[in-house]
Amino acid sequence: MSCARGEHVHTLNVELRSRSYPVLIDAGILGRPGVLDPQLAARDVLIVSNTTVAPLYLPALSATLQSRRLVPVILPDGEAHKTLGNLSRVLDVLVANRFGRDCAVLALGGGVVGDLAGFAAASYQRGVAFLQVPTTLLAQVDSAVGGKTGVNHPGGKNLIGAFHQPAAVMIDTRTLTTLPARELRAGLAEVIKYGLICDAALFAWLEAHLDALLAGDPGALAHVIRRSCEIKAAIVGRDEREQGERALLNLGHTFGHALEAATAYKEWLHGEAVGAGLVMAAAMSQACGYLSAADAARVRQLVERAGLPAHAASVEPQALLEHMRIDKKVKGGRIRLVLLRAIGTAFISDDYPQGALRSTLAAHCGAARR
Amino acid sequence: MSCARGEHVHTLNVELRSRSYPVLIDAGILGRPGVLDPQLAARDVLIVSNTTVAPLYLPALSATLQSRRLVPVILPDGEAHKTLGNLSRVLDVLVANRFGRDCAVLALGGGVVGDLAGFAAASYQRGVAFLQVPTTLLAQVDSAVGGKTGVNHPGGKNLIGAFHQPAAVMIDTRTLTTLPARELRAGLAEVIKYGLICDAALFAWLEAHLDALLAGDPGALAHVIRRSCEIKAAIVGRDEREQGERALLNLGHTFGHALEAATAYKEWLHGEAVGAGLVMAAAMSQACGYLSAADAARVRQLVERAGLPAHAASVEPQALLEHMRIDKKVKGGRIRLVLLRAIGTAFISDDYPQGALRSTLAAHCGAARR
Repeated sequence: MSCARGEHVHTLNVELRSRSYPVLIDAGILGRPGVLDPQLAARDVLIVSNTTVAPLYLPALSATLQSRRLVPVILPDGEAHKTLGNLSRVLDVLVANRFGRDCAVLALGGGVVGDLAGFAAASYQRGVAFLQVPTTLLAQVDSAVGGKTGVNHPGGKNLIGAFHQPAAVMIDTRTLTTLPARELRAGLAEVIKYGLICDAALFAWLEAHLDALLAGDPGALAHVIRRSCEIKAAIVGRDEREQGERALLNLGHTFGHALEAATAYKEWLHGEAVGAGLVMAAAMSQACGYLSAADAARVRQLVERAGLPAHAASVEPQALLEHMRIDKKVKGGRIRLVLLRAIGTAFISDDYPQGALRSTLAAHCGAARR
Repeated sequence: MSCARGEHVHTLNVELRSRSYPVLIDAGILGRPGVLDPQLAARDVLIVSNTTVAPLYLPALSATLQSRRLVPVILPDGEAHKTLGNLSRVLDVLVANRFGRDCAVLALGGGVVGDLAGFAAASYQRGVAFLQVPTTLLAQVDSAVGGKTGVNHPGGKNLIGAFHQPAAVMIDTRTLTTLPARELRAGLAEVIKYGLICDAALFAWLEAHLDALLAGDPGALAHVIRRSCEIKAAIVGRDEREQGERALLNLGHTFGHALEAATAYKEWLHGEAVGAGLVMAAAMSQACGYLSAADAARVRQLVERAGLPAHAASVEPQALLEHMRIDKKVKGGRIRLVLLRAIGTAFISDDYPQGALRSTLAAHCGAARR
């Protein structure tokens, strides 16, 4: 990862040799003509967006991509629509418009749009160019960077997909002005995660500036977006295919994915499930004797202050455990978890007391909690 | 590519650095216990096969894979079933059986089974181990080696897929004893292709030994399988992602894929379409002044002697041209063709007289030919 600050655009690079790419961050960059030209050779561009985002930002994006042939596909909004069926719909549009191998697919929206469009780009003609224009905080700080693409299966989150890096990520921080408060809070879950896995100073900064973030302060948001992208770009640059270190980014996600699957991707936003998952991972780390009660309490308090759920009333502990067993991080039948030794220090373990997992789930799931 | 001859098993290696893998060739290898053990770490193995091949060879394969958990998925037989819908079905079985990222997918069958199973392996959990056990001549000489996977779209052949190399290819030449004559002939189209693109001696050998091949002579078949795999392994080793030389392997395929799509994958076997495509490519090369009339005639004669079609009565020239335009090899709106300068020398061109293409199609397509 390298970093440069131009006159206007803050640029990070994800360093992946021949597949390196820039993350461009700026307020108002979305409507700037030609800003993607260096990364976008294609004449034919399929823009995948959703019914919420397209009316807000498709016109400005179209101005940026002037003189290209743009074909939009507008999907319904929400995690429940990240399906093989909608992937097929996007592929149908590519074929119907006779897009060649030299086309590009551009995602304009949040993580759902980005993941699905990315998998379409990965699999159409065995791979075409892909660009990410994330418009939610969660996508800007996490899902748009790193090349994980895919769709959900009724049996589990992101079970079908590919690694396919974008040619560029363009983040317009101004798009957050139209983001619903619930979505903003969901995005903060991933920012908290970065602090927990490797940056205790970021975690403390969040404790100090959470109110500004929740109020939508542009400077505070720009700070966490830049820092999050820096951390993610560095980790992806060192471990693109999740052979090791990258798995730390899954802190809270084994719990979170299972929460989403157990509620059929309809009840929780991804970031909300991750928020509850972070609390569960901290409680599990405490139950195993790795994390102090004080640190576990700080995690829970920050998640709750961010307006994120810390328990799952509608999911029974046993049901959650069943869904965790099909997660991608299961290896040799054992559920691998990311656990915490301290705020800022995470590690991976599949060697923990099963009783600790059961008691953690029992304490954070089920109607009895309410 | 390297090559070694053991006491029993003829082994080639596809050299792709960390993703290198062996191609094991022998008569009777399919039922030999433990023969895949060095390449197959997985305990859970999903076997994808079809209703024709599974009854013949699944029992022997199961003996080879002793002590593993085997789950079969048996698809209907035929190119028309290489669809996103059947991919989804295979993925459903993987999820329903809670296969983890450490599982393997094994293809037992021809090119359809191999392509679909390979794409399932590429996309399940963003990529799991994959093994090829091809049982048709076409799959043994071509599609099982090289890592191209995918499914068809109604708009075009193999439009959705991934590059995903197998961990091993195991070719039992004895499976050809149960192969229908029509399928054997279809496989020969790809062998003829290798001669045309880079091995004039192989082409001449085929002219001299075609009758033995058509009669199912084991020695003759083993010879062409080994030589074909050698050529393919060498080309794939030099150009895995088809940035250059590998595209030569598409000789006849731009015509052939369009023939298949124009007939909804129901009328032609892939190899039959390639056979007609080779004749069209040779005729086109002659029409452009690259290939001598004598060489074009040799191509046509060998294809016809192999019992393969040399023209497409049921497809109108204009319809074929439309389908060629959506092919993956179209670049910048121009149809890229592999053409011949001589038998054994091929090259890629998108700069040819459009009239030559139209007259070639008119001479080889449409009811008027009959």
